[in-house]
Amino acid sequence: VKIQLALDRFSIEDAIKIASQASQYVDWIEVGTSLIKEFGVQSILSIRKAFPDKVIVADIKTFDNAEYEMNLCFDAGADVATVLGAASAVTIDKCVRSAIEKEKQIMIDLASVAPEKWVSMPVGDHIVWCLHVSKDEQEALHVRQEGEHAALQQVPVRPTIAIAGGITKESVPLLSPLMPDIAIVGSYITKARDPHEASRKVREAANQLEMAQR
Amino acid sequence: VKIQLALDRFSIEDAIKIASQASQYVDWIEVGTSLIKEFGVQSILSIRKAFPDKVIVADIKTFDNAEYEMNLCFDAGADVATVLGAASAVTIDKCVRSAIEKEKQIMIDLASVAPEKWVSMPVGDHIVWCLHVSKDEQEALHVRQEGEHAALQQVPVRPTIAIAGGITKESVPLLSPLMPDIAIVGSYITKARDPHEASRKVREAANQLEMAQR
Repeated sequence: VKIQLALDRFSIEDAIKIASQASQYVDWIEVGTSLIKEFGVQSILSIRKAFPDKVIVADIKTFDNAEYEMNLCFDAGADVATVLGAASAVTIDKCVRSAIEKEKQIMIDLASVAPEKWVSMPVGDHIVWCLHVSKDEQEALHVRQEGEHAALQQVPVRPTIAIAGGITKESVPLLSPLMPDIAIVGSYITKARDPHEASRKVREAANQLEMAQR
Repeated sequence: VKIQLALDRFSIEDAIKIASQASQYVDWIEVGTSLIKEFGVQSILSIRKAFPDKVIVADIKTFDNAEYEMNLCFDAGADVATVLGAASAVTIDKCVRSAIEKEKQIMIDLASVAPEKWVSMPVGDHIVWCLHVSKDEQEALHVRQEGEHAALQQVPVRPTIAIAGGITKESVPLLSPLMPDIAIVGSYITKARDPHEASRKVREAANQLEMAQR
């Protein structure tokens, strides 16, 4: 189980500083939506440059204008760019095409997409599904969406799965029924007094989850 | 009927240059999603500064992290910031609260929200609804969404309405059944050989629409 470190609500410099402390234990580094919207594509360029050996995820949350936005991310060095599952089918399809053409990946953010609709989402080598409880919803509801596991059972070909939304060392084992390939962790590491130690603990929990899944 | 000029897929400098040519005939100026994602909040600051007398709309398309993103826009001088109707109810509600608190407005972008769901969207002094056919859908489908007019009939209190999606001088009169308060125009003006003349023609059509609606 890979760990994706999500960097949000920092300056680019602070984001890089924190990611450096955690980099030993994380596999993918996410340029958060807030960094992209606050600092633009420069945030992707800078984090790509700071971590040449990591998989860089640009959480651009594309909803329209797919080709332009995918190109922004991929040309800035992102390996993965996100698109909202709530976007139109046309937009999602254009993102898939961009990813295939540029030999990159897209991550479909399923936040606010009812699980019974997931079956219509594309699956493939260039596609990751992200089961995501949004930050605003986490704060209001404190729970994951119902029906996630049942929805995954309906999908004929199992997608690569990332899970996001308030994940901590303690909650990693609870992800087990969803069999994630990637656990996305933000504040638990970035807001920790010791991001290095926090990331080590998440790594340990993720390793144990992986053993349990075998 | 006000005209909102949408600026997308330009450098900040070119966006300001084009908007200057059209400014005489437009009321609201939109910092497009592509400008925000490419150049960050600097795009809002620069366009605010260039057009101190216009209403500035930041098309940030918030989907999560509502308070942070609304503050980014409003603190940079935007009068209106957009939120996706496809976001969770919690996120939309937080955007409404931010707008009220800061005495600004939000625009709810209804792209990819089925018209039968519009009735659940908030309405009020600080809220504009944006009936929007996304760019990717325009290119694929060439039509507006069905059921827009019927959906508006179901809403107990009529919202302030903006309409977007490939609007031209020729299509302005066709908006009449929806009784828009704001017509959002992008490429027809920004890609015109003469943006000044194009904006004048749209202004004329919008004035005629307003007369017809009385």
